Amino acid sequence: MSGKQKNKTTITIYGQPFTIVGSENTSHIRDVAESVDDTMRDLDLKHPYLGMNRLAILAAVNVTNDYAKLQKAYEQLKQDYDLLQTYIRKEEKLKDA
Amino acid sequence: MSGKQKNKTTITIYGQPFTIVGSENTSHIRDVAESVDDTMRDLDLKHPYLGMNRLAILAAVNVTNDYAKLQKAYEQLKQDYDLLQTYIRKEEKLKDA
Repeated sequence: MSGKQKNKTTITIYGQPFTIVGSENTSHIRDVAESVDDTMRDLDLKHPYLGMNRLAILAAVNVTNDYAKLQKAYEQLKQDYDLLQTYIRKEEKLKDA
Repeated sequence: MSGKQKNKTTITIYGQPFTIVGSENTSHIRDVAESVDDTMRDLDLKHPYLGMNRLAILAAVNVTNDYAKLQKAYEQLKQDYDLLQTYIRKEEKLKDA
């Protein structure tokens, strides 16, 4: 067993109770649960009569889509950051020369 | 109607067919669908007999958790990037002075 503290958090999403056990803190898990609940309720407004199965899958699709976009933005920003760092190192070498 | 081209993509997640209409390209939507399908199948291995509803909601919870972490990392990187930019601007002003 790892030494990391395990938290047990009970959340409710779309009327379904879940007990989440993990190293994340309770307040973070509650924020995540609220976000999933909001996403499902928004989708339900746009696509009524879809049923909970399909609503939950669509919620997962939406968040995965957002994740993929953010990951692309992160990678681009990391490239830009590395370029700035390389530039600064070069400039500092010139200053020291 | 906006001028953006709309693509219609049919995907299958956990045996459920969905038709997604949007501006995202078909290959991106298929990657997203595959990722959600993989997440649900992984969760099913860890928590068998959970049922599709709860499996899909848990998949959405997992991805939302990953998204929240990546967002935090993005914000931190953006702060670091802005600091480097400010430093470079200051150094360039000193050079020009």
